[in-house]
Amino acid sequence: MTELQSIDNILKKLSLADQEQVNKILYGCGYKTIDLSDVQSEDFEIAGYEFLANAEQLRCPRIVRVAAFQNKLPLPTSAPILEQRAALYDLAKDAIKVAAKAKANVFCFQEAWNMPFAFCTREKEPWCEYAESAENGPTTKFLQQLAKEHNMVIVSPILERDQVHGDVIWNTAVVIDNHGDVLGKHRKNHIPRVGDFNESDYYMEGNTGHPVFETEFGNIAVNICYGRHHPLNWLMFGVNGAEIVFNPSATTGELSEPLWGVEARNAAIANSYFSVAINRVGTEVFPRGFGNPTHTDFGHFYGSSYVAAPNGSRTPGLSRTQNGILIAQLDLNLCRQVKDFWGFRMTQRLDLYASSLSAAVKHDFTPQVIRK
Amino acid sequence: MTELQSIDNILKKLSLADQEQVNKILYGCGYKTIDLSDVQSEDFEIAGYEFLANAEQLRCPRIVRVAAFQNKLPLPTSAPILEQRAALYDLAKDAIKVAAKAKANVFCFQEAWNMPFAFCTREKEPWCEYAESAENGPTTKFLQQLAKEHNMVIVSPILERDQVHGDVIWNTAVVIDNHGDVLGKHRKNHIPRVGDFNESDYYMEGNTGHPVFETEFGNIAVNICYGRHHPLNWLMFGVNGAEIVFNPSATTGELSEPLWGVEARNAAIANSYFSVAINRVGTEVFPRGFGNPTHTDFGHFYGSSYVAAPNGSRTPGLSRTQNGILIAQLDLNLCRQVKDFWGFRMTQRLDLYASSLSAAVKHDFTPQVIRK
Repeated sequence: MTELQSIDNILKKLSLADQEQVNKILYGCGYKTIDLSDVQSEDFEIAGYEFLANAEQLRCPRIVRVAAFQNKLPLPTSAPILEQRAALYDLAKDAIKVAAKAKANVFCFQEAWNMPFAFCTREKEPWCEYAESAENGPTTKFLQQLAKEHNMVIVSPILERDQVHGDVIWNTAVVIDNHGDVLGKHRKNHIPRVGDFNESDYYMEGNTGHPVFETEFGNIAVNICYGRHHPLNWLMFGVNGAEIVFNPSATTGELSEPLWGVEARNAAIANSYFSVAINRVGTEVFPRGFGNPTHTDFGHFYGSSYVAAPNGSRTPGLSRTQNGILIAQLDLNLCRQVKDFWGFRMTQRLDLYASSLSAAVKHDFTPQVIRK
Repeated sequence: MTELQSIDNILKKLSLADQEQVNKILYGCGYKTIDLSDVQSEDFEIAGYEFLANAEQLRCPRIVRVAAFQNKLPLPTSAPILEQRAALYDLAKDAIKVAAKAKANVFCFQEAWNMPFAFCTREKEPWCEYAESAENGPTTKFLQQLAKEHNMVIVSPILERDQVHGDVIWNTAVVIDNHGDVLGKHRKNHIPRVGDFNESDYYMEGNTGHPVFETEFGNIAVNICYGRHHPLNWLMFGVNGAEIVFNPSATTGELSEPLWGVEARNAAIANSYFSVAINRVGTEVFPRGFGNPTHTDFGHFYGSSYVAAPNGSRTPGLSRTQNGILIAQLDLNLCRQVKDFWGFRMTQRLDLYASSLSAAVKHDFTPQVIRK
């Protein structure tokens, strides 16, 4: 089956007037395309958008460019680990170079970017060998150089091995600042157990809370993959002051895809911040097979990475099929402007919900049901 | 300016093959059209859809038909109140009759359906005269008859006057069961203060919690209008066991419309229930004028009512311009099936968030910020 390249391309078949109407309602009118003709690449689809904010009297615009990178595996999953990793590093280096040329300040990879998404196989070996220290593993070291060289914050979702605490494995995003220092890490809060796909074969629910990383390019946070289904996860990053929340993901399938455009975007709206949804692309084949009946892939990762703004506008997606870099120029002042306009934080009644949820988690909780 | 009738109509200009691709990703593949040719009406757009669930061994299908009604004002806002109300009652009676013919079990109106949406004017008179007792005001009495006659649960969002507690006014949804009895009421939890539109001129944040009404046609709840911007509001209805949450609304404008398709749908996904988003249609003119600079309307209410399912599928919307009735046949078994499939409730970690939010509302709360 040939995979659809993108529904955005289909919508371009409509007349310009019709496109404008559809776009205004589907995607909001809050973004413009930016010219990146000087950073075209043969290897990556490159798309650039800009979200504008109003001028203020007391604050200068806080302009930040984020880069969302989606990629296929460059080598078969059966290649030796060192070779696969080297090939991914080469690809990453190229992508970061392109993003730097596009003046990106913050770069984020897809989930578990430095390995095949092998968790569908339920095999431990060789996949657990990819797990490494968040603070000084090879992937972090590799990226620290690039972050410093390009003056770029890099968000690097990897498989973490915590040697200090008994060799436990985690699904972790490492945040490296623009001086090449590890600012900190966040461990995936919500772990999927969907059908015969159970990531808790490999790692459990994260224990790092909802950290927001203060960088020179804004306060950023990372909601890893399945955490996008949980509004409370998004909410706590907002409560802690995030202005940009990245959602590095790896998701496939007809059941997941209609949710993709909804969840990260709803989070941007509800929490008055920017969200950056990044998904893998391509089909990753595991020749030994897994599951019942035996199959050799987890489905097509449909890419479609996009950025949503606090005002509910969103960019078109990258393709469903190709490596791509999405550059979005954000004026972070928009976050507070939207808070002031819609007032969602002011009207949120967190005290009510702190109390309701505290009651709801008790074993003797009685739901508020009105019966005749 | 001529208002666009609907983006769904624009998308029909694409080839059938393209429509199928776009539809699958934009709206999900979970619904089918149902034939309502025997209930066509000259007064209302009528659309019918069906969401399917799998057969189970221990539970019979639990098939329920809901009707979402969006309407314009039949008379000018300057007509005497009694005449306006009578005209709205006539319209409502017709709509309920059509919905009954379409075998609807639960019928829901738009927000403050029995009056103009006059809260933009900030005038108290004559608009507060529309406020009435939820339990035995004229609107409730009028609908009790119809509910009984048609064996239909009716959700009636009105302006409530609470005479027992000092004549206070509330934005309230009354739930009348299919025997014509008032099952209970819910008061709007979150109140907008957007630009020069401040509903707290009329009524304050609701004090009825998040009730779920147990009816013969499923457990239903009502998230009134601006409450749709608050994921926690949606969440608590889910925690209390809602299977269908109605969102009667009155919303206008370019800034609101890109949010419309996202929020109620995200709620359906995150909470594994059906959501029914209902918006007013048309432009309501208040000849005396209000605001600064003086204007005479609050903008075009863009209708576009729709139903979203727990699996993230949604129906197309009713028009942006016309009175309409959307009939959706739901198998409520889908809610639990989706919970079992995606596991969002199981992986929700409510205990973590009860604790995080309890900390976050304290005055001495320190956000979790990682600084260098």
